[in-house]
Amino acid sequence: MTLSSGTVAPGAPTRTATGSVTVRALRLLESFTAERPELSLSELARRSGTPLSTVHRLVGDLMEWGALERDPSTGRIRVGLRLWEVASLAPRALSLREAAIPVLEDVAAVTHENVQLGVREGDEVVFVERIRGRRSVRLLTRVGGRFALPPTGIGLALLAHAPADVQERVCAGPLRRFTPYTVTDPVRLRAMLAEVRRSGVAVSDRQVTDDAVSVAAPVFDRSRAIRAAVSVVVEADTGRPAQLTPLVRAAALSIGRALG
Amino acid sequence: MTLSSGTVAPGAPTRTATGSVTVRALRLLESFTAERPELSLSELARRSGTPLSTVHRLVGDLMEWGALERDPSTGRIRVGLRLWEVASLAPRALSLREAAIPVLEDVAAVTHENVQLGVREGDEVVFVERIRGRRSVRLLTRVGGRFALPPTGIGLALLAHAPADVQERVCAGPLRRFTPYTVTDPVRLRAMLAEVRRSGVAVSDRQVTDDAVSVAAPVFDRSRAIRAAVSVVVEADTGRPAQLTPLVRAAALSIGRALG
Repeated sequence: MTLSSGTVAPGAPTRTATGSVTVRALRLLESFTAERPELSLSELARRSGTPLSTVHRLVGDLMEWGALERDPSTGRIRVGLRLWEVASLAPRALSLREAAIPVLEDVAAVTHENVQLGVREGDEVVFVERIRGRRSVRLLTRVGGRFALPPTGIGLALLAHAPADVQERVCAGPLRRFTPYTVTDPVRLRAMLAEVRRSGVAVSDRQVTDDAVSVAAPVFDRSRAIRAAVSVVVEADTGRPAQLTPLVRAAALSIGRALG
Repeated sequence: MTLSSGTVAPGAPTRTATGSVTVRALRLLESFTAERPELSLSELARRSGTPLSTVHRLVGDLMEWGALERDPSTGRIRVGLRLWEVASLAPRALSLREAAIPVLEDVAAVTHENVQLGVREGDEVVFVERIRGRRSVRLLTRVGGRFALPPTGIGLALLAHAPADVQERVCAGPLRRFTPYTVTDPVRLRAMLAEVRRSGVAVSDRQVTDDAVSVAAPVFDRSRAIRAAVSVVVEADTGRPAQLTPLVRAAALSIGRALG
């Protein structure tokens, strides 16, 4: 995800062996996690492996624009609302979510289950929306969070329609095991992907947690490019995933049509 | 929103008259809007008033980390999903939304109206969540969007509990008129803010659009600091805003308690 090399002036003064100042500043943002959304300057230095004096300077730049801000009561550093405002314009989050949310809400109203929307980013799925059902099973995922592609229903739907090199790389593994049901055999995974392409639906049966089944379908835009996948996650014992297949497939078609 | 000046090395090599390289790169992100979420390099140069060669270099840095990405079909530049992932960790968006969404959904289920959540950023309100009601009136706002404080219900609730200097600055105006009902007289605005503090509820009657009334209440955390405001927006003719007051106040208390 870079411009052609010719567009970056070689030996530009701000570029160092560890990347440009801007890239080093942006990498600092990766130190924040859902578990640790606020950090002190010294924690930022430690977590990012950056000297404290450099952290001071980079954080000053990021705060000047509003990418970071201070919690007024604790004085700790956190991701700023300004960054969230700008990031809410990301088309793969914003226009996709706007097209999908009414459909996701209808599916949740009918099923009372968790309904999720995800996109592929590299070799992982990023969950961009979730409507929580009243009767909802425990999930390991969160909106804005990443997860491995192969064990999730959404990931299987995305991977089945990903470019060949992505499929090859992911299938070559290693494939992490989450439950006794997680598919870790590349041959079996390839067969599952072929089945997803044939049937139009991806079912992940207790592969992430041993009590949940996910039924997912790929979302294509009008030029038949895959843009996302949608899933309903139900309890393995009582959820009757087979009944959900037509609903999930229809929801994926509705979202694709709404994408315009 | 800067560190104390002593923390930024004076005359650091990356700092120029127009701000550090990082700040200049981040400012490029402001060229994207909800109406124009994808831009060509030359459009970016034109909209940001930056030479094309500089835009090339800054965009290269932003793309290297994923703050920007290319639309694979059009080749245009857009805000990247990586930025959205990191920004989704902003506590003023994430933890606030997580605490509020179940409450907002309950209010929407009962009223079938638009329910909104906003925070103050400087002299404006930023809307961080909205649950659309089935029976929803037209709104000028969007999630991630900003609006003036005085004419909106959420803005009145936030402004009534903002620091004195913010109240003074905003009341001093100019106060923009959106409809014939918009309050543009500083004396009347100050009286409204006093009434909001007294009653615990803010009502904006047709001040943004001439067919909508917003009923809002401030959300305080356990240390009695104002964190957000919540509103229900109804049709001016049929919405019976007075009936909503107890519901909106109770919702604000629920969200405050959920903030922990």
